[in-house]
Amino acid sequence: MTTPFVAVLMGSDSDLPTMQATLDVLKKFDIRFEAKVTSAHRTPAATHAYVQDAEARGCKVFICAAGLAAHLAGAVAGITTRPVIGVPIDNGPLQGHDALLSTVMMPGGVPVATVAIGKAGAKNAGYLAAQMLSCGDEDLAVRVKAERAECAEEVAAKDAKLQAKLA
Amino acid sequence: MTTPFVAVLMGSDSDLPTMQATLDVLKKFDIRFEAKVTSAHRTPAATHAYVQDAEARGCKVFICAAGLAAHLAGAVAGITTRPVIGVPIDNGPLQGHDALLSTVMMPGGVPVATVAIGKAGAKNAGYLAAQMLSCGDEDLAVRVKAERAECAEEVAAKDAKLQAKLA
Amino acid sequence: MTTPFVAVLMGSDSDLPTMQATLDVLKKFDIRFEAKVTSAHRTPAATHAYVQDAEARGCKVFICAAGLAAHLAGAVAGITTRPVIGVPIDNGPLQGHDALLSTVMMPGGVPVATVAIGKAGAKNAGYLAAQMLSCGDEDLAVRVKAERAECAEEVAAKDAKLQAKLA
Amino acid sequence: MTTPFVAVLMGSDSDLPTMQATLDVLKKFDIRFEAKVTSAHRTPAATHAYVQDAEARGCKVFICAAGLAAHLAGAVAGITTRPVIGVPIDNGPLQGHDALLSTVMMPGGVPVATVAIGKAGAKNAGYLAAQMLSCGDEDLAVRVKAERAECAEEVAAKDAKLQAKLA
Amino acid sequence: MTTPFVAVLMGSDSDLPTMQATLDVLKKFDIRFEAKVTSAHRTPAATHAYVQDAEARGCKVFICAAGLAAHLAGAVAGITTRPVIGVPIDNGPLQGHDALLSTVMMPGGVPVATVAIGKAGAKNAGYLAAQMLSCGDEDLAVRVKAERAECAEEVAAKDAKLQAKLA
Amino acid sequence: MTTPFVAVLMGSDSDLPTMQATLDVLKKFDIRFEAKVTSAHRTPAATHAYVQDAEARGCKVFICAAGLAAHLAGAVAGITTRPVIGVPIDNGPLQGHDALLSTVMMPGGVPVATVAIGKAGAKNAGYLAAQMLSCGDEDLAVRVKAERAECAEEVAAKDAKLQAKLA
Amino acid sequence: MTTPFVAVLMGSDSDLPTMQATLDVLKKFDIRFEAKVTSAHRTPAATHAYVQDAEARGCKVFICAAGLAAHLAGAVAGITTRPVIGVPIDNGPLQGHDALLSTVMMPGGVPVATVAIGKAGAKNAGYLAAQMLSCGDEDLAVRVKAERAECAEEVAAKDAKLQAKLA
Amino acid sequence: MTTPFVAVLMGSDSDLPTMQATLDVLKKFDIRFEAKVTSAHRTPAATHAYVQDAEARGCKVFICAAGLAAHLAGAVAGITTRPVIGVPIDNGPLQGHDALLSTVMMPGGVPVATVAIGKAGAKNAGYLAAQMLSCGDEDLAVRVKAERAECAEEVAAKDAKLQAKLA
Repeated sequence: MTTPFVAVLMGSDSDLPTMQATLDVLKKFDIRFEAKVTSAHRTPAATHAYVQDAEARGCKVFICAAGLAAHLAGAVAGITTRPVIGVPIDNGPLQGHDALLSTVMMPGGVPVATVAIGKAGAKNAGYLAAQMLSCGDEDLAVRVKAERAECAEEVAAKDAKLQAKLA
Repeated sequence: MTTPFVAVLMGSDSDLPTMQATLDVLKKFDIRFEAKVTSAHRTPAATHAYVQDAEARGCKVFICAAGLAAHLAGAVAGITTRPVIGVPIDNGPLQGHDALLSTVMMPGGVPVATVAIGKAGAKNAGYLAAQMLSCGDEDLAVRVKAERAECAEEVAAKDAKLQAKLA
Repeated sequence: MTTPFVAVLMGSDSDLPTMQATLDVLKKFDIRFEAKVTSAHRTPAATHAYVQDAEARGCKVFICAAGLAAHLAGAVAGITTRPVIGVPIDNGPLQGHDALLSTVMMPGGVPVATVAIGKAGAKNAGYLAAQMLSCGDEDLAVRVKAERAECAEEVAAKDAKLQAKLA
Repeated sequence: MTTPFVAVLMGSDSDLPTMQATLDVLKKFDIRFEAKVTSAHRTPAATHAYVQDAEARGCKVFICAAGLAAHLAGAVAGITTRPVIGVPIDNGPLQGHDALLSTVMMPGGVPVATVAIGKAGAKNAGYLAAQMLSCGDEDLAVRVKAERAECAEEVAAKDAKLQAKLA
Repeated sequence: MTTPFVAVLMGSDSDLPTMQATLDVLKKFDIRFEAKVTSAHRTPAATHAYVQDAEARGCKVFICAAGLAAHLAGAVAGITTRPVIGVPIDNGPLQGHDALLSTVMMPGGVPVATVAIGKAGAKNAGYLAAQMLSCGDEDLAVRVKAERAECAEEVAAKDAKLQAKLA
Repeated sequence: MTTPFVAVLMGSDSDLPTMQATLDVLKKFDIRFEAKVTSAHRTPAATHAYVQDAEARGCKVFICAAGLAAHLAGAVAGITTRPVIGVPIDNGPLQGHDALLSTVMMPGGVPVATVAIGKAGAKNAGYLAAQMLSCGDEDLAVRVKAERAECAEEVAAKDAKLQAKLA
Repeated sequence: MTTPFVAVLMGSDSDLPTMQATLDVLKKFDIRFEAKVTSAHRTPAATHAYVQDAEARGCKVFICAAGLAAHLAGAVAGITTRPVIGVPIDNGPLQGHDALLSTVMMPGGVPVATVAIGKAGAKNAGYLAAQMLSCGDEDLAVRVKAERAECAEEVAAKDAKLQAKLA
Repeated sequence: MTTPFVAVLMGSDSDLPTMQATLDVLKKFDIRFEAKVTSAHRTPAATHAYVQDAEARGCKVFICAAGLAAHLAGAVAGITTRPVIGVPIDNGPLQGHDALLSTVMMPGGVPVATVAIGKAGAKNAGYLAAQMLSCGDEDLAVRVKAERAECAEEVAAKDAKLQAKLA
């Protein structure tokens, strides 16, 4: 039997500083993952082979990061029917506006679950993957809900600091 | 025990013609759903109450459609930790560009899985919800994969028509 | 009886360097204010409770600053019927263009009085709040008008410096 | 003694179909208003004279609608220190995106309270003016709050219709 | 030995009315072509197989048309090293702005020769293919140059009509 | 009798580093000019008075620089019927895109001759003013034409350097 | 001796319905003009020859209209040192946004005096040409000023109609 | 008989740091080239003469780089019927968005093969020129295909490094 995991694909190793945020969230939730540099344009056959193999080995969610004419998430979504999360990277002169549109405007039948451009999106890709896996893992669902409460406490702590500063 | 379902929320009943595409896909996959008109701005308390109740009754995925400064998906994502899919509606002078940015650019910790603006996105919200539910429902996963094959056949049929026309 | 005041809400404490300009203008006009870090997405219930309580305690104007998919002003505008001023923060890859559209494109019935992106807008949020309060406070109206005259003198002083430089 | 009123200025009579929504909201709240066609570019002296006179006669809020390089609201904001609401009109090839930026991006010291482009913004200009006047008129504040409740009921009614259609 | 030809690929048969302009130009220059409906997302394997086979059979230039998150040209460019021309189709709410960025912003090493959005681009895809083929076909180069002269005559004829109208 | 001159107006003294390019071109052509800091919003009456006076004293062309919701050129164009050149300044988060639209999209009857955003535009404002004055000053027309030839020589010199580098 | 005139160039005869507004303004001011269809791309040599000849025959101002990658105004500005007015035409999927940027963002040394996209810009091209010619024709300057007063009266008449409607 | 070569034209020598990437790719493939600084606006006659001469001497492909209102590629495409590749340079406040639209939105009959803005596009201009020349040079076609395989190996090497880092 396969063990479920998340595959985190990047078009280039220069995306890793941004995508570290994804890996950190997956680790926090104790979610198994694989990370891989692969390119929709430079290594399409290798990408195709990896995605089919990963799905067969139990990959439940794919997270794909790419910049510019960001095709990686869409290409992966055309190979698998597992949910694909797309992270638009802000690495070019248009600051990720191109990557956002290339990722989100998918035609009917082949969705990509798109998150925000850059760091905030990379972090949210991890949270969204955890939420998706929770559909079949109530134990994880409980941990995700608990983490949200911590997040609220952080906001309260920041407010306390503001009150101290203004007092 | 609760029965899993998808909640489809719309900011206005004028979004229904677009969102019918979502409901059609959910029906095709025999996925239970509830549809509801509720507003992040005009009925925030009712929205809050509905989302908490729906989650308690077994809602596994929320799909939220809104136009302009489209806050519904983000507001729902702040209440639940189930995955939230956002469909930007193209109903104003900026043709959904405003709704796209208002839906997708969520801050870290509170993701919205954003799909394309308008009809294509509404259809894909249904597919994406089915893919998400498949994380915990292998029977559904099989049906989703089978449907993709049909979709490929449609493309082949369209090509056959083109060849006939050009011959 | 309640004493009128302005509530200045920020989605994150990283917005304070920008929003200090708002606080400075409110101080210049001797307007009572409260500042608070609270989030439309991470602490929606706390936000809701604060806004209702603040309105009950005499808050006459809310000023809300947020970046990215900036929902804070819209969320507050859905809770209170006091005027809400929205300041779009330029803290992401799209430089506040996303925050502007998320703040200003509100649907009919729930307005947000939107000012410019970033520092200029933060300063103007203070002036606009002072102008709004002047609707019920003629003494303040006089001070606001006097301050405008000073502002004109500053422009004249800058012109004098330019003439000296060019002479 | 002067009676308070709202002045609704339009750059062109072609803006009236959009701005009727503003007038309707002001009537609903029994707010006295004057409407006037005047142009920042074609009749700057007449605009200047009207605004100074209106302020002297008790105008508490100015609402200004213009399209393209929409300068009317900014020009009025430079003459009066009463709050100025700007409505960007979507009447050119850029569909109001130009009017939005020309209205909202005001420099520090001279704010324009900007609402959404087109019809939704016109309606909200009326609501926002009512909220502003409420700062000095608690009776109006009560009516504004009551109207919000009706607005919530409309959403509930639309939801009921949706439920009937789906049943 | 293979006979050279151009392959014209479309993501959907709804692109044919636009792409007819490409076919018309190719016919005018007596250039052999194949047209095919194939999708980067719905039929990636079939697309891959077709492109490899076409290149082996003598295809010298690929022309790819797609709208929204237009990946077809980029996907084909990742399979072949023959020049790939991309035509962004204007079929969605963003009017081809998304398709343009998805087509043109290709990463280093995998170019797509992008032409204008819609009809003008479809026509130019035919001209550009003819120019490319001229690199190895001086007879075609002569016909392309001759056609440009006709095109200049058409402008002169339009000017003559204008002079008649103004006279 | 009045001596012709050009008036160069800036919304803020922070525009001078950019607008120095305008002054340099005017000096090169020995064109008399006045430079002045004045604001469409903060000192509308002083701006109005200056423009009327300058026109009476022989100002033939106005050059106006402003950023953000750049109204200065439009405001001046509403006061004078001498040609007004607008230079959009790139000093805010939207990098002059707002200033460009606020300057160029003028309604019928009140034109602003708009040049490029920032430094290139500032330089061109000087050239354009010289060209305009040439309509009534053939001596200046000759100097403008001569300067263009020098400009071509600079390009040739740059090319020579490139050839040396590549050799 | 040459008689001064204005040359109105269009990239295509499909621009005439828009550019009729320019011709109407020139006629109103009794300004001699020539209109011509000529293309920067399809007939560059003819364009070059016409511009040089027109300048020699006394053309004082060039007005150039083009859509899409609108190069006509820039190309003409590179040939003549007479002022060139550019009118961006809104005839493609990007509604003239492309034509605006292609016309206005000229490099230093070669200005194009750009007006608004479409009809408003076409009308203003006529006014701007009249203002430019006024630099050397005080009689025309008087007529231009008189016409502005009429334009103000039209606004007053529209306001009178509004007052009648509202009374 | 003429020897085939590629001409690389730049609007300014400040484009060389970006365009070095083009020259490097051409060198890697042993393709003869000429590089030249020439301007569509400042030296139109020299540009015209060079392009006609180069075509006569055997230039098979033109590569043109320019920023802002980037007309160089379009101007060259109007002179030659050899394929013209346009590289939009990101050197102004709009970061190449203006150059992209000015380059790609060419009218029917005069195509420019546009690549990505900036460095990635400069590199791809070299690859695209090699692919175009391959239409008539099977030996080059083989080298281009071989280089693609190396490029895939680089991606694999980056992935190996990532695996080492994560292990």
